[in-house]
Amino acid sequence: VRRPAGTTERLEAFSDGVIAIAITLLVLQIRVPDVGGDDGGLFSALLDDWPSFVAYAVSFIVIGIMWVSHHSMFERIAAVDRTLQFINLFLLLCIAFLPFPTALLADYVGEGGINASIAAAIYSATMTVIGLTFSAMWVHLYRHMELLVPGLTRDRVRQSCKRSFLGVGVYAASIGLAFLSAQACFLVYALVSIYFAWGPSSRILITDAGQEAAEEAADEAAR
Amino acid sequence: VRRPAGTTERLEAFSDGVIAIAITLLVLQIRVPDVGGDDGGLFSALLDDWPSFVAYAVSFIVIGIMWVSHHSMFERIAAVDRTLQFINLFLLLCIAFLPFPTALLADYVGEGGINASIAAAIYSATMTVIGLTFSAMWVHLYRHMELLVPGLTRDRVRQSCKRSFLGVGVYAASIGLAFLSAQACFLVYALVSIYFAWGPSSRILITDAGQEAAEEAADEAAR
Amino acid sequence: VRRPAGTTERLEAFSDGVIAIAITLLVLQIRVPDVGGDDGGLFSALLDDWPSFVAYAVSFIVIGIMWVSHHSMFERIAAVDRTLQFINLFLLLCIAFLPFPTALLADYVGEGGINASIAAAIYSATMTVIGLTFSAMWVHLYRHMELLVPGLTRDRVRQSCKRSFLGVGVYAASIGLAFLSAQACFLVYALVSIYFAWGPSSRILITDAGQEAAEEAADEAAR
Amino acid sequence: VRRPAGTTERLEAFSDGVIAIAITLLVLQIRVPDVGGDDGGLFSALLDDWPSFVAYAVSFIVIGIMWVSHHSMFERIAAVDRTLQFINLFLLLCIAFLPFPTALLADYVGEGGINASIAAAIYSATMTVIGLTFSAMWVHLYRHMELLVPGLTRDRVRQSCKRSFLGVGVYAASIGLAFLSAQACFLVYALVSIYFAWGPSSRILITDAGQEAAEEAADEAAR
Repeated sequence: VRRPAGTTERLEAFSDGVIAIAITLLVLQIRVPDVGGDDGGLFSALLDDWPSFVAYAVSFIVIGIMWVSHHSMFERIAAVDRTLQFINLFLLLCIAFLPFPTALLADYVGEGGINASIAAAIYSATMTVIGLTFSAMWVHLYRHMELLVPGLTRDRVRQSCKRSFLGVGVYAASIGLAFLSAQACFLVYALVSIYFAWGPSSRILITDAGQEAAEEAADEAAR
Repeated sequence: VRRPAGTTERLEAFSDGVIAIAITLLVLQIRVPDVGGDDGGLFSALLDDWPSFVAYAVSFIVIGIMWVSHHSMFERIAAVDRTLQFINLFLLLCIAFLPFPTALLADYVGEGGINASIAAAIYSATMTVIGLTFSAMWVHLYRHMELLVPGLTRDRVRQSCKRSFLGVGVYAASIGLAFLSAQACFLVYALVSIYFAWGPSSRILITDAGQEAAEEAADEAAR
Repeated sequence: VRRPAGTTERLEAFSDGVIAIAITLLVLQIRVPDVGGDDGGLFSALLDDWPSFVAYAVSFIVIGIMWVSHHSMFERIAAVDRTLQFINLFLLLCIAFLPFPTALLADYVGEGGINASIAAAIYSATMTVIGLTFSAMWVHLYRHMELLVPGLTRDRVRQSCKRSFLGVGVYAASIGLAFLSAQACFLVYALVSIYFAWGPSSRILITDAGQEAAEEAADEAAR
Repeated sequence: VRRPAGTTERLEAFSDGVIAIAITLLVLQIRVPDVGGDDGGLFSALLDDWPSFVAYAVSFIVIGIMWVSHHSMFERIAAVDRTLQFINLFLLLCIAFLPFPTALLADYVGEGGINASIAAAIYSATMTVIGLTFSAMWVHLYRHMELLVPGLTRDRVRQSCKRSFLGVGVYAASIGLAFLSAQACFLVYALVSIYFAWGPSSRILITDAGQEAAEEAADEAAR
């Protein structure tokens, strides 16, 4: 008899692969500037290209936090049904798409005007769809508690659903913000990331699984 | 004595790696449009580039379903012989090639005319070859039942062969369709994907392994 | 106490990752032709670009067989010392470099003349260095039998060394052949691959590990 | 109860994925030269492009040694807390960025002048930040010994901290060197790599884990 865990492991490995590749492809949008014979012009050309570097860093952290979030979710999943497999595939489709809005934002945010706002709005819309897909996964798990590891209460899963809805709300709001100030979106993405990672409600995206594991390890070492 | 499972695990991991990379490289064919100083021109430029986005989504789902299919097959394989290793290598060659017909289709389907048909036909032909390779693997397994996990009947493997033949037929037919309407091919690829994923014969490509695993897990949790 | 196998597993996974990425990046050298408004010109443009397709297929099979070879070698390795780690790193450096000579060959072999020969010679030289690195690994293992799994005789390892030397010889000879006919090199690479994969001395690069595993599985199923 | 090791394993796999992709993307900065109809011009065009090949080799070895170093560190880590997860994410952000300074250096070092120095200084600065991040991880582990595998003494971890500080110092110094001679930086990077890999203080980056494992294996085989 095959172990159900096998299914989860290979799906996790595939998801990790796609996320790891998407995060690493981000660097390809940073282009080496051609400064011709302008001696010393390289430094100012690189400074002018600041949106590429900021977009790289922001998207890297955003995708990295998605990975942590995905990781935490799958630590709670014992078996994967077909629906979950396809929601997860759609999630990967959106995450693997992120290098495009990143490149778009990097190219247009420096220009300002309506094009910069369109680029930022497309980035925010992509993030909103990703947030919705995470929510759909949590709602599906809430309705199929048998897919989760034993010991998880419906209450904790409901909390995870609510937290994912908050993420959707923040990103949807940033679609509107894009038309007020595209450059402010960068700031918002960065702040949201720092908030998710370090703030009081950091459990929205990053569950305390790692913390628990560390405590368990400490307990084991103490024994 | 080394366990035969080891061979399968590393081959699966390698295959997953290649498929995960191919699926993630798809985004590189979407280019950031250069709209010069045209304020607000970015939105219409992106709309004009709809084939790139549709091609990305369709190919992502197509490769994703291939991964699910490959995953299901290898859950049934206990050991890999040299023939299977080389059929699998050829399968990966074809899957890793898909970003090219995807980019071709994205560039030419909007143009219409005979070039659009050629691009769609090349995409369909690639899919047909992939289907044939899956069929070859199932036929080889049917002839070498000792490579499969114990408990699988010849009857079930024969069914898997037949299902893979159906996939080949549908994709071969879409080569002809390309010359009637290249844009219709997009629709067909999408419908075939949805059909394979959710329709009554979804077991053609996606076996019920995940479902079984979920049921086993539910059983275990119930005990 | 940690198991020494851990070291090997993560090194294998890293090597597999690099090889899987290198093999999948090969497709990026195939460019979508720009045929302007030439209706029906896409087909002939693609035909003219045959070297890209042949180079893709040949390099994919070549790297795929290297993976099989690497896989077979590491099935025999129980622990990795620092020397082996660095020879392996140099091997990966060369394999990850292969997309460049592949693109070079694809661009210049159609032109003919001395440039085509130079491109083919650089491809052959890269293959020769890869062969030498495989040889260096086998020779190091022959001198450090304690790194291998128990039960392997010095005689079998010596055979693996000899077989790897033959590979080096064939590829070194193809450097010279490049200056007689660059296009013939394609044929030679393909024939060498087929020979390594299916011919009587297929054990040069592909050991019979998979075969053994299949037989073991058959034995187990028979019991 | 789930094992804390699970957390570490998936984080290691994700890190390995990102590092393997970054190291393999390095080849994309090497461009096929366009020599037009210049018969035999390919060889001299490739010779002129020597910085691309040197930059590829140096960055490949540099990232490869970082992988060995990361690998050694995680062999000593039993559980990962949130802080470590985010320092590691920042480390991956910097390593995945390396293909950009590599391409920059490859394009500008041949030109000489102040632009070459700027390119080399940016490369050195990236390396310095990576070194600082490794140091931050070791310092965090020193303050949280409960995250490490049992049996490690504070003294050994303090040594690892000190060794990582030395790496930071060497790379920081090479920022200054870039303005004396950009080409000398190549030599220094290569020498530092060789020193780290083979020199008397090779344990700075590469711990003796592999060696230990080999000895354990030899012991086991001897029993």
